[in-house]
Amino acid sequence: MLTQAQNDLLTQVGPGTPMGHLLRCYWMPIAGASEFDEIQAKPIKILGEELVLYKDLSGQFGLIDRNCVHRRSDLSAGMVENHGIRCHYHGWLFNAKGECLEQPYEDTAHPEAHSKAKIKIKSYPVEVKSGLIWAYFGPSPAPLLADWEAFSWTDGFVQIVISSVPCNWFQCQENSIDPIHFEWMHENWGNRLRTQKIEFGVKHLKVDFKEFEYGFTYHRIKEDGDENDDAWQIGRVCLWPNGFFLGEHFEWRVPIDDENTLSVTWKYTRVPKEMEPYEQKVIPTWYGPVFDEIGKPINTHVMNQDFLAWMGQGTIADRTKEQLSASDKGIVLMRKKFFDEMQNYSNKKPLKALISDASLNHQIKLPMVYGHLVTQSRTIEEIKNQKTLYPFYKSYVFQAGQPNWVAKMSSQALGIEVQDFDGIVVPRHSKK
Amino acid sequence: MLTQAQNDLLTQVGPGTPMGHLLRCYWMPIAGASEFDEIQAKPIKILGEELVLYKDLSGQFGLIDRNCVHRRSDLSAGMVENHGIRCHYHGWLFNAKGECLEQPYEDTAHPEAHSKAKIKIKSYPVEVKSGLIWAYFGPSPAPLLADWEAFSWTDGFVQIVISSVPCNWFQCQENSIDPIHFEWMHENWGNRLRTQKIEFGVKHLKVDFKEFEYGFTYHRIKEDGDENDDAWQIGRVCLWPNGFFLGEHFEWRVPIDDENTLSVTWKYTRVPKEMEPYEQKVIPTWYGPVFDEIGKPINTHVMNQDFLAWMGQGTIADRTKEQLSASDKGIVLMRKKFFDEMQNYSNKKPLKALISDASLNHQIKLPMVYGHLVTQSRTIEEIKNQKTLYPFYKSYVFQAGQPNWVAKMSSQALGIEVQDFDGIVVPRHSKK
Amino acid sequence: MLTQAQNDLLTQVGPGTPMGHLLRCYWMPIAGASEFDEIQAKPIKILGEELVLYKDLSGQFGLIDRNCVHRRSDLSAGMVENHGIRCHYHGWLFNAKGECLEQPYEDTAHPEAHSKAKIKIKSYPVEVKSGLIWAYFGPSPAPLLADWEAFSWTDGFVQIVISSVPCNWFQCQENSIDPIHFEWMHENWGNRLRTQKIEFGVKHLKVDFKEFEYGFTYHRIKEDGDENDDAWQIGRVCLWPNGFFLGEHFEWRVPIDDENTLSVTWKYTRVPKEMEPYEQKVIPTWYGPVFDEIGKPINTHVMNQDFLAWMGQGTIADRTKEQLSASDKGIVLMRKKFFDEMQNYSNKKPLKALISDASLNHQIKLPMVYGHLVTQSRTIEEIKNQKTLYPFYKSYVFQAGQPNWVAKMSSQALGIEVQDFDGIVVPRHSKK
Repeated sequence: MLTQAQNDLLTQVGPGTPMGHLLRCYWMPIAGASEFDEIQAKPIKILGEELVLYKDLSGQFGLIDRNCVHRRSDLSAGMVENHGIRCHYHGWLFNAKGECLEQPYEDTAHPEAHSKAKIKIKSYPVEVKSGLIWAYFGPSPAPLLADWEAFSWTDGFVQIVISSVPCNWFQCQENSIDPIHFEWMHENWGNRLRTQKIEFGVKHLKVDFKEFEYGFTYHRIKEDGDENDDAWQIGRVCLWPNGFFLGEHFEWRVPIDDENTLSVTWKYTRVPKEMEPYEQKVIPTWYGPVFDEIGKPINTHVMNQDFLAWMGQGTIADRTKEQLSASDKGIVLMRKKFFDEMQNYSNKKPLKALISDASLNHQIKLPMVYGHLVTQSRTIEEIKNQKTLYPFYKSYVFQAGQPNWVAKMSSQALGIEVQDFDGIVVPRHSKK
Repeated sequence: MLTQAQNDLLTQVGPGTPMGHLLRCYWMPIAGASEFDEIQAKPIKILGEELVLYKDLSGQFGLIDRNCVHRRSDLSAGMVENHGIRCHYHGWLFNAKGECLEQPYEDTAHPEAHSKAKIKIKSYPVEVKSGLIWAYFGPSPAPLLADWEAFSWTDGFVQIVISSVPCNWFQCQENSIDPIHFEWMHENWGNRLRTQKIEFGVKHLKVDFKEFEYGFTYHRIKEDGDENDDAWQIGRVCLWPNGFFLGEHFEWRVPIDDENTLSVTWKYTRVPKEMEPYEQKVIPTWYGPVFDEIGKPINTHVMNQDFLAWMGQGTIADRTKEQLSASDKGIVLMRKKFFDEMQNYSNKKPLKALISDASLNHQIKLPMVYGHLVTQSRTIEEIKNQKTLYPFYKSYVFQAGQPNWVAKMSSQALGIEVQDFDGIVVPRHSKK
Repeated sequence: MLTQAQNDLLTQVGPGTPMGHLLRCYWMPIAGASEFDEIQAKPIKILGEELVLYKDLSGQFGLIDRNCVHRRSDLSAGMVENHGIRCHYHGWLFNAKGECLEQPYEDTAHPEAHSKAKIKIKSYPVEVKSGLIWAYFGPSPAPLLADWEAFSWTDGFVQIVISSVPCNWFQCQENSIDPIHFEWMHENWGNRLRTQKIEFGVKHLKVDFKEFEYGFTYHRIKEDGDENDDAWQIGRVCLWPNGFFLGEHFEWRVPIDDENTLSVTWKYTRVPKEMEPYEQKVIPTWYGPVFDEIGKPINTHVMNQDFLAWMGQGTIADRTKEQLSASDKGIVLMRKKFFDEMQNYSNKKPLKALISDASLNHQIKLPMVYGHLVTQSRTIEEIKNQKTLYPFYKSYVFQAGQPNWVAKMSSQALGIEVQDFDGIVVPRHSKK
């Protein structure tokens, strides 16, 4: 149970807040690069800041203030040009550094004043990596954008899935260090929703949590496992500060503001042996719905169940009324680390998991359970026969709403027909 | 005209407010029992408190805190079991007393700690009576749930109709002691809406208001009546603290919070002689819309006209700007009683209309005008010939939106075909 | 750049605010008279005040408090009668002066009290002129309602177009003194939206701004013009305090409240020679949408582009963060005048542009560029051959959503078939 002041520290991310300062020291994935094959600019809110993300005709991305500094009009309605984006109201042109390149009337009528030289608007550096657009909101110099090993895996079909979840980011990230919820929410409740039967799967016997360079790992032994199991030996990764690495996919919980979170998933699926060598031309990005057509949270898919749970905790979970228990040791550990790091930030001490040495930023390995299930080459026949693998090939189980065009791309890449999702009816990582 | 402080006293119902204290001393109807033939649990907000109402597999209803005490997740998304409801996030199981019966991981990993024994969440007693689910939110011991005589009438078809009206409860209840609005809103305005003609019905000549054990009665003489009329001799019942009894139906105005009211109607219709004896197997519950498909308040049916009037007074009617008049004596009387009773509550004095003696709580009679129209046995032919009765048999005149399945049940019970509602074109209780 | 206090002064219009006081000294167009061929009463909010606008059966318009003084019910749900509007709840009848003409129950039961005599509710004078309903919210005596010359033009088809734009009125009115936005928003951006090509039209070389009796004029020279051009010699009219006169149409930006503006357009189109003499029987009024069916601001038509720009500046543009430039001299001039006039109001000095001498209020001429394009008689053939005229005849280019029945009226009046809008692809007032 926290005090209200502690809860505020964890949940408030706007400019000037302690958590806002800390999170701004890390690169955040904010969109999919391929979105800009269709659009030129879009409004985006991150960490409480209203911005416009655009791709100009030279192919450069820019992330600048949403409102033109002139008369506050909306730059997301602007026109991209060879370099930069032009306000649609009076034609001022800005580049990705926030510099004003043109003020058409002033340049014509009063060129001697050269007034554009004095103008600079808010801008943030942007990088594209593995299909994602990343932005950095902190002080210069920016750290390096992490080059996780997974981003270099070959022969895989990658897709990016994004949703806007109407609740605070921190309750989402607490879910990244919560082994027990798999048993109850995804297995037992998921099963209940599908079958209406009261049948419970294998129980957790023991959990443990450890810190490492890039975050935390959580470890568990269930009734059908033992201490030799990957799940105990290696553990899964709660990635610092706002990610989750599950082997074949990453999830990030990027604060839109204090009351909304951008859920960003990067999902890799190894193509079957028959499809090798496979090189992906475009990494598709799609936006998954959180609510169904009558406004109820979708509960059929893995992450939709997570979303439903997060939202169910309230817009900003009231941690002054919680009652933590033995299963929550990881959450306690993580919160403490955040409190410490906010302190470190204000004391100008080094921060956790920042990467500054380029020679070390090469295909960084993360702890990974059941790695063979993710990266090993298998024939279609073998995949179809393996009940812990096939469900992940025949439909996108993590989120509802995969568009047909992505299902088709996936199907063509994998050589396996996409079917309607019918729930994951086997434990996800059974030893059998 | 009230002061703002007085208006706040009447309208604020949250925990700790004077009116909140007072209303919590009375049982409130909050749902229909038959709703739970289809669903297992639902979120419900009453008196500003967020709760979950469920029926477990043993048939017991429970009304407990909506948020799990563990991590604040939404228990309305939980799983009911033989006894109680289980949180979908980490599997904690709670019963109707708010006791924690299971904490699966803690019970397995740390059984010696027996930590569940220390956990108790908010819970309220629930009773089922005459198709309604009633809840009690006050201090122990609870009073008895009133056994109104109407709940024992035989040979009747009962339906429960519920709506959520977006305004404060008190302006709804003021309507329970307002005879003049029948003449103007339901008769003259209702007629105007249907016919576009400026024609007014018979006028009220005199009104009077009296207090009795279970509330107030209001009395009236119209141009076509006299002092021998039931309407003057007996009067209609404004039921304390938040009900209205009109003979063949009850209405309750249950505060959802300060800005929303649950309108709950219990409506009895005597079956014709040909259908006797009739025993109702299930009392249907249906939810009536307040707004039409383009968002305008529905104005065709009796209670929808009331809803429209209540909402028209503002979310919380501003009684600092009203100008009460001769017709409002009942409202003044009722407000005074509420101010007195709030005082009585804080002085720990006995409160009005609480029933504690079980021997007296048996088919309690309420004043009832034109009782013969409600309970007397008539043939279908007689009903069809009586223009003050037939409209109530051929359609549900009180609220728009009766579902087909309820209309069908009604039609089968009454032996009279349901027709489209075309307005009540005769005064409802004319002497002729 | 303004201080927050200055921005508040310009943008807050509720009762008691300095700008609220000032604007209330001027007649405001609030609806179209022909709306009341279909309806009898409607709720309307102007300058932050909730009102009901009705037309009684004698043809008189009334604008009175929305809430009945008795119990606060909504008079917009009331019944109009020969004189005045009657509350639907208890039948109190009010006339256009806010006097209570009847209290049915009180009049019947207690006629001696004559309590209605003491009752008066808020009411505002209303006048109808050229199809518009105008209201005056200020102190008595009211000034004269301006009789602009355009209201007397003959042989024209007039239509009134109204939209509710969710942003503060002042950023809308700043657009009335902003020549440069035509070049960029309507020409260059409009062209970009239609053609996707980066092609810019002729530039502004010089702008100028002057005050005159009824507002300001703005003057400009573009690359294809010179100082002999009407656009420099005469200029266009930013009408004090909240209008815009463009020759063939007026636009007013009427504050609904601080965060919403009623855009009211009065548009005249000269009928071709073949249709003369033409006398218009009814001036149609239609309400144009601001957003499309998925909630995005419409950007195809001239004023929809304006709406989009205004809304893009934020609900209330934050002028503490703007950076005005050479093109904004008119805006600076206008703001200064508003600050001065608010001061004049509080010092009880005469205010700008108030008309009190009836002998002078006759077909008042306003500066008007290219007047020949507006009022001169031409054959259909001539119109079709003139590329600066024909687009305005074959579709309503200013706002999306003209209903079919208006298009049909227009088409019949003009003798020119209405076609789908395909954008204005020529500069609107080219010299060539």
